[in-house]
Amino acid sequence: MEWLNTPCQIPNAAAMEAARWHQSQLTKPAGSLGELETIAIRLASLQGRERPTADKVFISVFAADHGVAEEGVSAFPQAVTAQMVANFLNGGAAISVLAQELGATLEVVDVGVKTPIAHPRLISQRAGAGTANSAIEAAMAHNQLALALQAGADATARAQAAQTDLFIGGDMGIANSTAATAIYCALLDTPVTEATGSGTGLNSAGVLHKAEVVQRILNRHHQHFGQPLEVLRRLGGFEIAALTGAYVRAAQLGLPVLVDGFISTAAALLASKIQPAVADWLIMSHTSAEQGHHFVITELGQRPLLDLGLRLGEGSGAAVAVPLLRMACALHNRMATFAEAAVASKL
Amino acid sequence: MEWLNTPCQIPNAAAMEAARWHQSQLTKPAGSLGELETIAIRLASLQGRERPTADKVFISVFAADHGVAEEGVSAFPQAVTAQMVANFLNGGAAISVLAQELGATLEVVDVGVKTPIAHPRLISQRAGAGTANSAIEAAMAHNQLALALQAGADATARAQAAQTDLFIGGDMGIANSTAATAIYCALLDTPVTEATGSGTGLNSAGVLHKAEVVQRILNRHHQHFGQPLEVLRRLGGFEIAALTGAYVRAAQLGLPVLVDGFISTAAALLASKIQPAVADWLIMSHTSAEQGHHFVITELGQRPLLDLGLRLGEGSGAAVAVPLLRMACALHNRMATFAEAAVASKL
Repeated sequence: MEWLNTPCQIPNAAAMEAARWHQSQLTKPAGSLGELETIAIRLASLQGRERPTADKVFISVFAADHGVAEEGVSAFPQAVTAQMVANFLNGGAAISVLAQELGATLEVVDVGVKTPIAHPRLISQRAGAGTANSAIEAAMAHNQLALALQAGADATARAQAAQTDLFIGGDMGIANSTAATAIYCALLDTPVTEATGSGTGLNSAGVLHKAEVVQRILNRHHQHFGQPLEVLRRLGGFEIAALTGAYVRAAQLGLPVLVDGFISTAAALLASKIQPAVADWLIMSHTSAEQGHHFVITELGQRPLLDLGLRLGEGSGAAVAVPLLRMACALHNRMATFAEAAVASKL
Repeated sequence: MEWLNTPCQIPNAAAMEAARWHQSQLTKPAGSLGELETIAIRLASLQGRERPTADKVFISVFAADHGVAEEGVSAFPQAVTAQMVANFLNGGAAISVLAQELGATLEVVDVGVKTPIAHPRLISQRAGAGTANSAIEAAMAHNQLALALQAGADATARAQAAQTDLFIGGDMGIANSTAATAIYCALLDTPVTEATGSGTGLNSAGVLHKAEVVQRILNRHHQHFGQPLEVLRRLGGFEIAALTGAYVRAAQLGLPVLVDGFISTAAALLASKIQPAVADWLIMSHTSAEQGHHFVITELGQRPLLDLGLRLGEGSGAAVAVPLLRMACALHNRMATFAEAAVASKL
C-alpha cells in the first residue's frame, strides 16, 4: 500500500488566477453568481485550464456487504445489497437514471458482496465475501484492505484513461451507515448518540440500538484510532475502502472528485487523514439528511453545493449536483465580457 | 384589471396522491430522495398527471427603467438596462447562456426601458419610458400599471400556448432592488435597515444612502400600504408589475412557475396578496444573497431549492434550479419499483 504515499498533484495557481480575472470581465455584477463563480474558478485550478468543463462524468459505484449487519442495525435485509447491484446494472436504480440523464459513464464494482453475482457488465474485484463483524473483530484482514483500496484506485485510473472531467464514487452496502458512523466517531471524537442516524429508515428504538452497536465497535478498537488505515481496516467496509483508495488516487492523478453524502464523506475524511492534500481535489456535493454528516463537513471545511435532504447514497447526491457544475462552466465559458457586449461596468 | 380576480386553478389532489403512492414503490428507502420527492409530487399535482415533466421551459425576461435611479441608489448607470437587453438578445448574458444550456425558450419583453430599443426579437409592450421617481411621486399612472400587468399575463399566455411545463420570469432594471425592498417593507412591515442590501454591489455608504431613499419612499406612500395594487403602482416598477401579472395569470391558467430571487419574489408576494391561491403555483428556486430576501421567504412559507449566494436576477437563479426539477421527474418516472426489480423492501 506504499502507493498511498505518492504525492498528490498540486492545483494550478496560474489557471485559477486566469479564471478569476476572466470572471471579473463577464457581464454581471462582481460576485453575483455566488458559488457558481467559486466552483468554476476552483475547477479551472484543478483542471489546469482557464476554461473548465464538467461534460465527461465517470461514476463508479462500489458494493459490498458488512458483517456488522448481523447485529440488526439496518431497516433492510442484507440480501438487498446484491439485489440493488442487479438494479444498478439493469437501469432501475436512482443512480442508473441519473447517469442516463447526465450522459455519464456508470460502472458497478463488486468489492465484496456476500454472494457473488454474475453479470456481464459487473466489474468483480472482490476483497472477500463481506467483511467480518466489527463489533466482534476487525472487519478486514490486512490483505483485504489492500485489495479494496486498490479496487478504488483502479476505478479512477479507468476514469482518467477515459479523459474524464469529474469522478464520482458511489456506495451500496446494507449496514454501511453503521461503519461510517463508527469511522466519524473514531476520527473526530464525535459523540455516538449525536453521530448516529436512522440510515435507510430505522425507528427511534432502532437508532438507539444502532448507537449501542457503534459504541461496542468503538470500545473494541479504540486503541487504534490514531491510525486512519487501521481505523478503516477494523471498522470497514470494503466499499468505504474502495472510495478511500479512489479519492487518494484521483488526487495523485489530478482528477477532480465530486463527493456524495454520508458514506462517501467517511472515505473523504479517511483519505484526507492519509494525505491532507487529497482534500484539494474533493468537491462536496451535498449535505446529507443523515444526522452525523455535518460533523465531518465542518471538519473538511467546505460548504456543500446542495442541501436537499438526500440520504440515499449510490453517488446519487453527487450526480444531482453535476448540472450545477455544468452551468457554472457554461456561464464561465460562454458569457460575454463587458467589452464584447458594450455594457458599462460599475460607476 | 378585473382579470386579476378570475379564480386560480386548483392543484389536482388525485394526481398528487397517485404520485405519492408511486414514489413509495420506487427502489429506495422511503423519503431518501428528500426534496426531489417532494417536488416531483408537487409538480404532479400542478400538472394534473402522475408523471410530471420539466422538459419544456419558457423564460420571459421583463426589462424596464426606474425613476428612482436618479436618487443614486445603484452601483451601475441607468444605461445598463438597455445595454443588457441587447446582451440578452445577443446571447451573451447569464440568462442567455442558461437558456441555451437548458434548451429553453427565452424571450425578452421591453415593458418600459427609458430609451426604446430596436431589435427584431425584442417584444415591445411598453408601459412608459421608465417609471417616475417613487421618492417624489407615484411610480406609475393607473393605466401604466394595467399595461405592465397585462404584459406579464400575455407572456404566460404565450408560454401556455407553447405547451410549457414550467414558466420562469426574469427581471432587468437598474435600481429595481430599491423598488423591491420598498415593496417588502410596505407589505411585510420589515425594518428598512434590515431589508436593504447592496444590490449590484453598493459599498456600505451606498447601502446606507439606499436605505434612506427607501425610507423616503415609504414615508411618501404609507397611507396606501393596505392595498397591494396601489403599493405596486406607487413603488414600481414596470417589470415587477409584469412579473406580478405573469404569476397571477399562470395560476389562473394552471401553469407551474419557478420563481427567481429578490426582485421576482417581490412580485410573488404582491401576486399572493392579490390572490392567496397564486402561491400554490409558485415554486421558490433559490435563496438570494440580497439580505432582505429571507423575510419574504418566511412569509411565503416555502423553502427554496438552492442557496448558492446568487444575486443576479434575469431569472438566472430559477434557470439554475431547472435541472433539479428535471432530475426529480426523471427519478420519479424512470426508477424501477421494488416489485419490478425484485428488491426486498423494508424488514
